[in-house]
Amino acid sequence: MISQDLASHTAAQLQGEDSLYKQVAFKISELIEHGTLRPGERVPSVRKCSAHQDVSIATVTQAYRLLEDRGLIEARPQSGYYVRAQRWTPPPEPAMTNPSPRAVAVRVSDLVLQIIRTGRTPGLIHLGASLPSPELMPMKELNRAMASVGRRFPLAANSYDPPPGNRALRVQVARRAMEAGCTLAPDDIITTIGVTEGINLCLRAVARPGDVIAIESPTYFGILHIIESLGMRVCEIPTYPREGICLDELAARLKSCRIKACVFTLNYSNPLGSCMPDEKKKLLVKMLAEREIPLIEDDLYGNLAFGLTRPKVAKAFDEDGWVMLCDSFTKTLSPGYRVGWVAPGRFKAKVEFLKFVNTAASPSLPQMAIAEFLQNGGYDHHLRKIRRLYAFQMQRMTEAVSRYFPAETKVTRPSGGMCLWVELPPHIDALQVYQDAMAAKISVAPGPLFSAKQKFTHFLRLNCGNPWSDAIENAMRVLGQIIARLGAIDSARVGKSHRRC
Amino acid sequence: MISQDLASHTAAQLQGEDSLYKQVAFKISELIEHGTLRPGERVPSVRKCSAHQDVSIATVTQAYRLLEDRGLIEARPQSGYYVRAQRWTPPPEPAMTNPSPRAVAVRVSDLVLQIIRTGRTPGLIHLGASLPSPELMPMKELNRAMASVGRRFPLAANSYDPPPGNRALRVQVARRAMEAGCTLAPDDIITTIGVTEGINLCLRAVARPGDVIAIESPTYFGILHIIESLGMRVCEIPTYPREGICLDELAARLKSCRIKACVFTLNYSNPLGSCMPDEKKKLLVKMLAEREIPLIEDDLYGNLAFGLTRPKVAKAFDEDGWVMLCDSFTKTLSPGYRVGWVAPGRFKAKVEFLKFVNTAASPSLPQMAIAEFLQNGGYDHHLRKIRRLYAFQMQRMTEAVSRYFPAETKVTRPSGGMCLWVELPPHIDALQVYQDAMAAKISVAPGPLFSAKQKFTHFLRLNCGNPWSDAIENAMRVLGQIIARLGAIDSARVGKSHRRC
Repeated sequence: MISQDLASHTAAQLQGEDSLYKQVAFKISELIEHGTLRPGERVPSVRKCSAHQDVSIATVTQAYRLLEDRGLIEARPQSGYYVRAQRWTPPPEPAMTNPSPRAVAVRVSDLVLQIIRTGRTPGLIHLGASLPSPELMPMKELNRAMASVGRRFPLAANSYDPPPGNRALRVQVARRAMEAGCTLAPDDIITTIGVTEGINLCLRAVARPGDVIAIESPTYFGILHIIESLGMRVCEIPTYPREGICLDELAARLKSCRIKACVFTLNYSNPLGSCMPDEKKKLLVKMLAEREIPLIEDDLYGNLAFGLTRPKVAKAFDEDGWVMLCDSFTKTLSPGYRVGWVAPGRFKAKVEFLKFVNTAASPSLPQMAIAEFLQNGGYDHHLRKIRRLYAFQMQRMTEAVSRYFPAETKVTRPSGGMCLWVELPPHIDALQVYQDAMAAKISVAPGPLFSAKQKFTHFLRLNCGNPWSDAIENAMRVLGQIIARLGAIDSARVGKSHRRC
Repeated sequence: MISQDLASHTAAQLQGEDSLYKQVAFKISELIEHGTLRPGERVPSVRKCSAHQDVSIATVTQAYRLLEDRGLIEARPQSGYYVRAQRWTPPPEPAMTNPSPRAVAVRVSDLVLQIIRTGRTPGLIHLGASLPSPELMPMKELNRAMASVGRRFPLAANSYDPPPGNRALRVQVARRAMEAGCTLAPDDIITTIGVTEGINLCLRAVARPGDVIAIESPTYFGILHIIESLGMRVCEIPTYPREGICLDELAARLKSCRIKACVFTLNYSNPLGSCMPDEKKKLLVKMLAEREIPLIEDDLYGNLAFGLTRPKVAKAFDEDGWVMLCDSFTKTLSPGYRVGWVAPGRFKAKVEFLKFVNTAASPSLPQMAIAEFLQNGGYDHHLRKIRRLYAFQMQRMTEAVSRYFPAETKVTRPSGGMCLWVELPPHIDALQVYQDAMAAKISVAPGPLFSAKQKFTHFLRLNCGNPWSDAIENAMRVLGQIIARLGAIDSARVGKSHRRC
């Protein structure tokens, strides 16, 4: 099954390529995709293929090497190339999370800052930060758009564009919101510095220090960070690894805690990768609107669906303006442009005021350049490309976990986004894994980052935003060795303490 | 005196120009500057000048028109051109302000937002916002720098550059801080989204909701806005129109109020235009450091000195890290780029944390482009140019006030920046002036914007950031008529009520 998925992915990537060897690789990957060549079967010899396809030996060799790089075929010494035998079954998934039902203060900042600081060490293999590789972004096209709008509209590029922000961008955002099931007008939207500023403004608009905010468990440390800095508390809601928040548990928490607002990432949450089915989103929106509780919806990853269509946003079901939708182009177009937006529903005036107070205005040119790209740059084509790539990279990362990590390891199976959430055997200390990995120049995001009280002590988040490479494969192998070593030390310790008893 | 200032300014602008008529205008302005031609004296006739200078009649006519536009000479019908007779003496200055000594909550947001919203009406003559005209900014050069760094460093341009922010920019900022008397290392600096984010971060780092912040009276409404949004209170400190804060009054307030931090604009404050002498800054820094009170110093206008050298910053006298210096390039290079920075002294770790939490990172390209421009773009040359222009524009604005506004009008005499603070006769309601002016498509900033309790009801702030033009001259005349009419209505009302008594 996996071979066929991989083959289909590879074929899609190679289709229409000019160079001969890629055309040959395309044909072989199609044979695998359609089951003509099955896992474990021998691929036509280089010589035979050269004759059939009427190309040189060198071309076929190059094609086979490409397919080998892509994990589709493997060379067996003295025997030739074979379709990779996939005796592989994906690792089991983690269970539903079970955070404390009480509201608690957040204490993650020190750990987050320490990890961010060490994350700047040069020469690291980055498996930690949830970031797309800039190489996968349309950098040239964006730069061209930036230079072009700067030249054509020098006055606008150099002038303040006060909240709600650049109109051309808001028009494009409103147009595209339809794909997420949402009817927005340009005037419903305020542009922000990434989703980070959006969530800040929304939280400040609806809650005050000391108030309780419902969040997913686990949740992105950036959200915890914001809540901590605003002196608010959290109530962590249990989540299923595939569907996200358990609505029954949420209903119970809404009764027992005075929840002032929710911050949820319903589509491909970070770090869990869960995606709430659309019909459950509808229930969620109704449940919260009835109680007049604002839902701050972070849809940063919603466009990174691996399937053909993206899921809806909760905002699509919002009849009374209680949903405040935050999004940005940092994961799909350019992390460095920092262009985000928020559709704050009934809280628009307050959020617009806070945007003005917080940063006065967003820089004009990056907004103009992204608006230009959205209008003429082939955003849909680009999205299709990175969705395929992230799916592929996540697939390879999952395979590597099952190949190199201890047998008891569990891992999520997201249908979008770029994060994997890995549950190690319970006695492994993720912070120790983090430190040993850093010593080996590999960054990972340890589980304690993702909860108010630094739980998830044996979890890791892995970033699948980078093109798969030997360096990443190797880093995963080293990571596996580190985890195995820590497991062995721990067993020895347990054994020793047993002997003492 | 004024003619000579003007002449000197005009001569400086025309020096080295290629076109013939400008060369002629340059020579005449030099004659006026050096007192060879004095106010009221006749300028050589067009015919005579044409013969002396060996240029055409048309060229001299063009030169004289230019000098007339610049306010240096005037045509008298049937008689020829004369050096403008300056019977003009500058209007008197406002007195020291006298705010309530008690700490108060801030209530300006509604008024500020209303005025900002109406400020977007198309076709306005903008005398309200304190903004440089983008035409005076090096737009082409900046766009070129932006396109060039985007092309040369596509990865960096599209990647996050987390706090403290772009290093090349911080190096340039540190290098230039020496001109303000300040020794900063790149690592002392954090880049921000304009000064607005800088002041936000600093306030949040050192104070909490309910705390009292000392500010100047009057103070920029954006600062009041931030303090209001953070739920803090203010203690407004009396200021002199030239030297700013009265240190004795500040000392008294420090005894009577529990002041948690100060936010002061010591160089060319907004709206007052006051500039605290450097030796007083030293006393101020000492006074606050002894009490361990942080000084958030907004130096947004410090580079816009009309003299040859800029004043020092208070940070120059900061031995113990209690001064948090905020600055940006929005008034000197490009409002739209929103590139600012803060040197938070002993609070650096906290401010860096808050920057990360507030907007995660500033957009990379605008920082890179400004760093590039600072390194190679002729920033000093550009600064010299806009300093001269702002001085000239402020001069013309002051003349227009004395020409068109009621005789009792008082006005500040800033030695830098771009704001004039105008005190109208006490019975004139500045908000009514604002509304009548808006009806005539002229925006002004009414005095109540600039205090916590909307005092300064008969003051206006005028922006001198735009190149002087007939449209501005005309707007000032209309504004004068509006004020005169309101004065007359008020007198009639007063007369009427007298008759009733």
